[in-house]
Amino acid sequence: MDAIENIMSRRSVRRFTDRKISDDDLNTILCAGMSGPSCVNARDWSFVVVRDKDMLLKMAEANGRPAEPLKGADVGVLLCGDLDRAFPRAKDYWVIDGSIAAQNMILAANALGIGSVWLGTWPQTDRVKAQAELFSLPDSAVPHSLIAFGYPSEEELSAPPKNDKFEEDRVHYEKW
Amino acid sequence: MDAIENIMSRRSVRRFTDRKISDDDLNTILCAGMSGPSCVNARDWSFVVVRDKDMLLKMAEANGRPAEPLKGADVGVLLCGDLDRAFPRAKDYWVIDGSIAAQNMILAANALGIGSVWLGTWPQTDRVKAQAELFSLPDSAVPHSLIAFGYPSEEELSAPPKNDKFEEDRVHYEKW
Repeated sequence: MDAIENIMSRRSVRRFTDRKISDDDLNTILCAGMSGPSCVNARDWSFVVVRDKDMLLKMAEANGRPAEPLKGADVGVLLCGDLDRAFPRAKDYWVIDGSIAAQNMILAANALGIGSVWLGTWPQTDRVKAQAELFSLPDSAVPHSLIAFGYPSEEELSAPPKNDKFEEDRVHYEKW
Repeated sequence: MDAIENIMSRRSVRRFTDRKISDDDLNTILCAGMSGPSCVNARDWSFVVVRDKDMLLKMAEANGRPAEPLKGADVGVLLCGDLDRAFPRAKDYWVIDGSIAAQNMILAANALGIGSVWLGTWPQTDRVKAQAELFSLPDSAVPHSLIAFGYPSEEELSAPPKNDKFEEDRVHYEKW
């Protein structure tokens, strides 16, 4: 798919078919996640990739009602920040670096015809704690976001195309 | 450009030619910035677009040595979070939403043959404060990141291609 069209056409997909994502496509998605910039090239993230249905249910339940789409997803990814790798003088760049990785994964999936929805975890501390407990994470790994991946259902495919408006009043030229 | 190739080939470009970025291409880049997901679709960002050379120098000086590339950029963008729009129950999602917008802009630029480098501002509070003062921002607008855009110099174009490794030890399957 054309790169600009891919960026503009991405939308959140919450209903999936049973079709499996191939290992090759999953690797491409993960590779995209590792291809973004990060502060001082710290690459301060990790990925937990889950296909087990019981675990996907538990991840959804630990993340509140908006995480329901995980229950029907083929793959769920828990993206974590890695505080051991984060820029020592300003560790909170891990939040930005994790976001870049997640958006790259979502865009790569869209290019492959795979739908996804980003399910917020950080900064909601109850969710961060629940995911850390569920996966028995070490202290250095901080839950950042969950992403549900799968092939879009018929309803999703027949939904009207996304029509984001260009919000002119959000752009300032030369000065605020 | 192919969407996957675009994601994988993006690298930071710090040296630019004098060639101007067209208004059409700049609008495409800004539109890409507005096309990502955001928490509860809050779209909690704003963009300050700067072409004035004197102002680009001031932005660079306010952001520390790594921001030098702004001095040779055709366009600099100060991306701000918008706290008035941010999800009231967890406002810090503005950091993630701004990161998504910035990464989308960088990827759109790459697809158009335009180089860019992401210059960190948040969470370094001295930089956040310096940019806020430089632009006399309202309290609701929090400096997130600066991005320098321009056409890559000859040296940049002849640099070896990026070769990000797939870090297998950053991926965990089913459990940590």
